[in-house]
Amino acid sequence: MTQPIRAARGTTPTARGWPQEAARRMLMNNLDPEVAERPEDLVVYGGTGKAARDWPSYHALLNTLTDLRDDETMLVQSGRPVAVMRTHEWAPRVLLANSNLVGDWATWPEFRRLEQLGLTMYGQMTAGSWIYIGTQGILQGTYETFAAVAAKRFGGSLAGTLTLTAGCGGMGGAQPLAVTMNSGACLIVDVDRSRLERRVRERYLDEVADSLDDAVQRATAARNERRARSIGVVGNAATLFPELLRRGIPVDVVTDQTSAHDPLSYLPEGVELADARDYAAAKPAEFTDRARASMARHVEAMVGFLDAGAEVFDYGNSIRGEAQLGGYARAFDFPGFVPAYIRPLFCAGKGPFRWAALSGDPADIAATDRAILELFPENEQLARWIRMAGERVAFQGLPARICWLGYGERDRAGVRFNEMVAAGELSAPVVIGRDHLDCGSVASPYRETEAMADGSDAIADWPLLNALVNTASGASWVSLHHGGGVGIGRSIHAGQVCVADGSALAGQKIERVLTNDPAMGVVRHVDAGYDDARQVAERTGLHIPMAKS
Amino acid sequence: MTQPIRAARGTTPTARGWPQEAARRMLMNNLDPEVAERPEDLVVYGGTGKAARDWPSYHALLNTLTDLRDDETMLVQSGRPVAVMRTHEWAPRVLLANSNLVGDWATWPEFRRLEQLGLTMYGQMTAGSWIYIGTQGILQGTYETFAAVAAKRFGGSLAGTLTLTAGCGGMGGAQPLAVTMNSGACLIVDVDRSRLERRVRERYLDEVADSLDDAVQRATAARNERRARSIGVVGNAATLFPELLRRGIPVDVVTDQTSAHDPLSYLPEGVELADARDYAAAKPAEFTDRARASMARHVEAMVGFLDAGAEVFDYGNSIRGEAQLGGYARAFDFPGFVPAYIRPLFCAGKGPFRWAALSGDPADIAATDRAILELFPENEQLARWIRMAGERVAFQGLPARICWLGYGERDRAGVRFNEMVAAGELSAPVVIGRDHLDCGSVASPYRETEAMADGSDAIADWPLLNALVNTASGASWVSLHHGGGVGIGRSIHAGQVCVADGSALAGQKIERVLTNDPAMGVVRHVDAGYDDARQVAERTGLHIPMAKS
Ligand SMILES: NC(=O)c1ccc[n+]([C@@H]2O[C@H](COP(=O)([O-])OP(=O)(O)OC[C@H]3O[C@@H](n4cnc5c(N)ncnc54)[C@H](O)[C@@H]3O)[C@@H](O)[C@H]2O)c1
Ligand SMILES: NC(=O)c1ccc[n+]([C@@H]2O[C@H](COP(=O)([O-])OP(=O)(O)OC[C@H]3O[C@@H](n4cnc5c(N)ncnc54)[C@H](O)[C@@H]3O)[C@@H](O)[C@H]2O)c1
Repeated sequence: MTQPIRAARGTTPTARGWPQEAARRMLMNNLDPEVAERPEDLVVYGGTGKAARDWPSYHALLNTLTDLRDDETMLVQSGRPVAVMRTHEWAPRVLLANSNLVGDWATWPEFRRLEQLGLTMYGQMTAGSWIYIGTQGILQGTYETFAAVAAKRFGGSLAGTLTLTAGCGGMGGAQPLAVTMNSGACLIVDVDRSRLERRVRERYLDEVADSLDDAVQRATAARNERRARSIGVVGNAATLFPELLRRGIPVDVVTDQTSAHDPLSYLPEGVELADARDYAAAKPAEFTDRARASMARHVEAMVGFLDAGAEVFDYGNSIRGEAQLGGYARAFDFPGFVPAYIRPLFCAGKGPFRWAALSGDPADIAATDRAILELFPENEQLARWIRMAGERVAFQGLPARICWLGYGERDRAGVRFNEMVAAGELSAPVVIGRDHLDCGSVASPYRETEAMADGSDAIADWPLLNALVNTASGASWVSLHHGGGVGIGRSIHAGQVCVADGSALAGQKIERVLTNDPAMGVVRHVDAGYDDARQVAERTGLHIPMAKS
Repeated sequence: MTQPIRAARGTTPTARGWPQEAARRMLMNNLDPEVAERPEDLVVYGGTGKAARDWPSYHALLNTLTDLRDDETMLVQSGRPVAVMRTHEWAPRVLLANSNLVGDWATWPEFRRLEQLGLTMYGQMTAGSWIYIGTQGILQGTYETFAAVAAKRFGGSLAGTLTLTAGCGGMGGAQPLAVTMNSGACLIVDVDRSRLERRVRERYLDEVADSLDDAVQRATAARNERRARSIGVVGNAATLFPELLRRGIPVDVVTDQTSAHDPLSYLPEGVELADARDYAAAKPAEFTDRARASMARHVEAMVGFLDAGAEVFDYGNSIRGEAQLGGYARAFDFPGFVPAYIRPLFCAGKGPFRWAALSGDPADIAATDRAILELFPENEQLARWIRMAGERVAFQGLPARICWLGYGERDRAGVRFNEMVAAGELSAPVVIGRDHLDCGSVASPYRETEAMADGSDAIADWPLLNALVNTASGASWVSLHHGGGVGIGRSIHAGQVCVADGSALAGQKIERVLTNDPAMGVVRHVDAGYDDARQVAERTGLHIPMAKS
């Protein structure tokens, strides 16, 4: 890479069609320095989540997309284009499978061995599937989660509460803003000062304290004065969490988003940040053992806060599993955030709907924001988010928006956007996608499918059916990944992206995909016995052959 | 089940279209008592491989297929229909995901727990994907394999050699006929006399000996007199293999097809056949330990034959892996059959192409046999198989044929069959499918992808891309399975079936699917560095963006 990558803007595609052009722009956008964590290593987010296997693959992807015809499909195997095949105009233009391994070999050492041989890459969820849009993506989910915490424990607002968390990286950096958007105070720990400072610049974090004492003083004051304020502090969570517990400071909510899913990315106590990369590369087994031992202490403190009455949850980074491997027996005493707060949304087919303006013009997003407010006038929480996002969210890369929509809503939004493109209300097409973390697209027993009502947490048929049905419904690109936020061996998940280019065909495809994709979430939860989901299915006439009523 | 299941025959569909009707007939055909091992339990083959989760699911599948429209798709999750969604006419009518589990939970105990909860089923390869056609399916593969053994070691014929094997079940029962078709003598051990007698009735096995002494005498005589003859003997392979090694009888080839992939199906020494089921159900862990200990002795004897100079190979049932778990260190001293004999075929996109006549009329298969001979007049080995199969293979259920065809051949055969339907040369449509054991459809480090040249054995992106591209190319049904012949945790594989109903649309779909599906095999082996595959790709102009030449 000689100069920073920036996706083309504007209304003229260089590829043969907008779906191909959209894939080009979104691949490049994932590696825009405004979006990506380490674009020079092709890393988009999550420590190691990449958009392409290597630079030759990156260039081959772009070139292949440029030439790809409207009845051809490019196949991508872990970030590398491996074939172009003749399909048809309803078929996706790109099919991607990233990081997948056969079960008995689905381990970090085997994955790393294959990665070092140049045979695979870590796709995370939206890194390898070209629909990461920066921190906003997680901000909405984090906002929803803290809103649910507030509703459950604190009468609908976090005002007067203090949330303690750690990990202010690509995803975790959304936490302080999500807490203050819910009117709370937040203390966030990170070993890397530059991560905290970055979030201050981006207005996701209000300030960085000078010392732990200073941080405690400021955070406690904000809590007591019922001020929405976020404070960062530099330190290792495995050291600071136990220390804060020992001091008995008043903490109401505790969670964590350090990169615990990958023990080579979590900094063990006693290791300098500057030495971590070399040390992890040189002695991965030893580093892993030390990281897990630190996570055990980190989680032990979280359980201490739980015992003291705080609301404590795992925020989807597998820290409980790693702490257990590190020898701490009570790691699973607190729940994951999905069963605790998100599952009721999943039962209605709700999930992280998102879109990006290929024009590059923020006015296009402003127009879609207005369209959303018009389409769903009765949804107050949605309106609040859209308005706050318009004010507080700085775009990274191509202008984009996210909001959680459900079954019966997403297709309406998508069809409307396509009409707006056709009518010239938007200056260029938009891409419409979502996170792999969605209602019917993932099997992940430590996160999205933790504690399913029927015990079906580990069944992975669902994300596969999701990918197949999106492929059969007209998505522009479809992805199937292993690993993601919770790590190798722990999840299988699927994604889809549709391109609204204003054509009638795009409209038909969007209607089907954005109906069927969230429908998978309703179906999966009906099958698992959730009554909420059954009611949604009945009300909407979803065709479930063996549904009992 | 009150009366035996038999698929409808004839030229009038009860479903709304032939693809739907074909799925109905093939599902029922998989459970025809002529085809299935235990139709009363919905088990098709491989000990536990099922066609539907349970009887309510079976009926719901049939009913849903009957009503399914030409722009709808039924989703099947481990043998149970979970949804019908609106797609389009190029989309598959059925999408199936069977037995899939997230990596860390991909173990037999977790699978069994979920199976007992009624949440999953074992799909094997073609049981849960409705394209099993009885023992002929494996017969052709076994014939090819023994032909390759003969070519490699014995100058092109097994005349004058003795092959020792075990397991005369649904798949393994093909071995004696495959050996005698290659002019050799065969001694086959099975604990279950009824299995041997069934194969005698079906003319796959010539005779059953009265005792081990009798068997040895007859087998040795056949070898010495260079007679093609197969002899069955009742006994436990873990006892008889070491005994035969001790006696020093002349054995030239050794393999095995007991149901070793599932330690609860392999009979341990000292357990009566009649007690096995109850014992395995009551004490699965103890049974597993004893089965593995027996497999260790069984494999130790196979290595003894290897040391004595015989050609020894694992025939895809994971017996080496289980013997290793049973404590035998040298289990992997002999290779799997794929790297030893099959991989060169895979590099050319060759694999188990098969089709069945929905009319039920054997004359339709005879007509397609003639078409194959006409299409590929230069292929002598293929012609020999087609002629022998016509003479020696008794149809089970709907008349069907299998032969291995490669990239550039399958599409020609498929398009020709569709033309024959259109022209009335066949009395009704045919279904065209294949085994999941194919060149580009499976990741299975103990079998199809064992010892890949680049070390990519465990990478599972390929079967997922295969399923996605077949879905995007117009297959009538597409399946994604975990487990199969080698067991839970050890493989991921995909299948596709096309329906040649004589329509122009079917012709277009068939051309694409039967081009792209075997192309995946060529691409996968080009990517792994096989020169044979690279040459095929170059010769045929396959579009591989990053191919080096
Ligand atoms: N909740 C969700 O929806 C969701 C979604 C995707 C991913 N995740 C998971 O959340 C985690 C964070 O993701 P990310 O993209 O922000 O990762 P990241 O690598 O960008 O950031 C991790 C941060 O943790 C810090 N850190 C590492 N070890 C630490 C320690 N011992 N003490 C304090 N700080 C430490 C790092 O300095 C870094 O800033 C990952 O495990 C990811 O898989 C969660
Ligand atoms: N090579 C291939 O292409 C391929 C393909 C699919 C499956 N397989 C594997 O081959 C194996 C056989 O499949 P199948 O469908 O014939 O299974 P099956 O269950 O129908 O038959 C297994 C036979 O082994 C016998 N057996 C069990 N334990 C024995 C023992 N200790 N000694 C002697 N005989 C014993 C049983 O009586 C039975 O007849 C399975 O493991 C299957 O997964 C191979």
